[in-house]
Amino acid sequence: MTTDASVPARRTRLTPEREQELYEAVIELLREVGYEALTMDAVASRTRSSKATLYRQWKSKPELVVTALRCTKPAHAPVDTGSLDGDLHAMAAGFGDGSEVDTSLIRGLSHASATSPDLAEAMREHLIDPELAGLRQLLTRAADRGEIPQDNPAADFMPHMMLGAVITRRLLEDVEVDAAFMHRYIDAVVLPALGFRR
Amino acid sequence: MTTDASVPARRTRLTPEREQELYEAVIELLREVGYEALTMDAVASRTRSSKATLYRQWKSKPELVVTALRCTKPAHAPVDTGSLDGDLHAMAAGFGDGSEVDTSLIRGLSHASATSPDLAEAMREHLIDPELAGLRQLLTRAADRGEIPQDNPAADFMPHMMLGAVITRRLLEDVEVDAAFMHRYIDAVVLPALGFRR
Repeated sequence: MTTDASVPARRTRLTPEREQELYEAVIELLREVGYEALTMDAVASRTRSSKATLYRQWKSKPELVVTALRCTKPAHAPVDTGSLDGDLHAMAAGFGDGSEVDTSLIRGLSHASATSPDLAEAMREHLIDPELAGLRQLLTRAADRGEIPQDNPAADFMPHMMLGAVITRRLLEDVEVDAAFMHRYIDAVVLPALGFRR
Repeated sequence: MTTDASVPARRTRLTPEREQELYEAVIELLREVGYEALTMDAVASRTRSSKATLYRQWKSKPELVVTALRCTKPAHAPVDTGSLDGDLHAMAAGFGDGSEVDTSLIRGLSHASATSPDLAEAMREHLIDPELAGLRQLLTRAADRGEIPQDNPAADFMPHMMLGAVITRRLLEDVEVDAAFMHRYIDAVVLPALGFRR
């Protein structure tokens, strides 16, 4: 394996493979020490790269961490199944297939973000906003098909309903959320609150 | 102010006032340094009591912290207003009147509880279970009055709906939950999901 440290700064251009390697190392470190204790020094040392390279490419620790999270978690643009209940259950099916680890990472980051405005902003921009946009799309399609009322006030709380279930499952029952739980929750809470009808 | 340190251990019996003083000091320390960094030494020093006294009375740090939280937050047994929407809106009205601070404390504790089984257990027993029992009572009364179906599956998710709203409000919109938000959420999500009818 080559190291960046020996390469003059201006010539360094990370390959996508090398970037991915760095992201995985960041996630590994996050799991080991948590966000607060994670330093750019530790990332540089673990990945045998220079701190200059890290800062040039990612500017700051919050940016590096959030990009790493975004690029290592499986992408899931919401599927268009043609119906709201189909879309939501397709989304639910993605829970519990290894995403448990992400959940605990994100919990740790949420905690850290309460005291780090930079991290909070990076999380919002790179993790939360894309999810919210996906949910909005899915509801717009449902309203256009006449499956839910155009002006149902519950639509504004869609993010709270979905994210709330994920977070509270662990907090209240001490288990990570899985697909079975999300399927039940969607049928019992989300669809009725939205006034869904086929 | 007298100090415990000078009093022989077996004679020490804390007065309710002295207990309250200790609890307030623990909360103060929690806010200053967080759960992980809070030590029994620091509590002893801040409250000018002996560690022996603290351990005799509370056995462990998780127990002391959770008891302090429980005994300093305003008690709120769910009110019986005679209707489900009345009960829930009465509960909502309690948000935002200074409980913001508790919210951030509890967020910090939730994070800590993920790595401390003792804290998780103490939180469950002293903070979460009493809340859940209150919610169950309120739903049973509503079902007995015929306001909601006896077997509505959403009832099982009542705790997730309520706690989820509180937690995600901050996470998604970066503001603490307040009464106005909870009133809207109850009308838009909770009551429709429960199939409420007057």
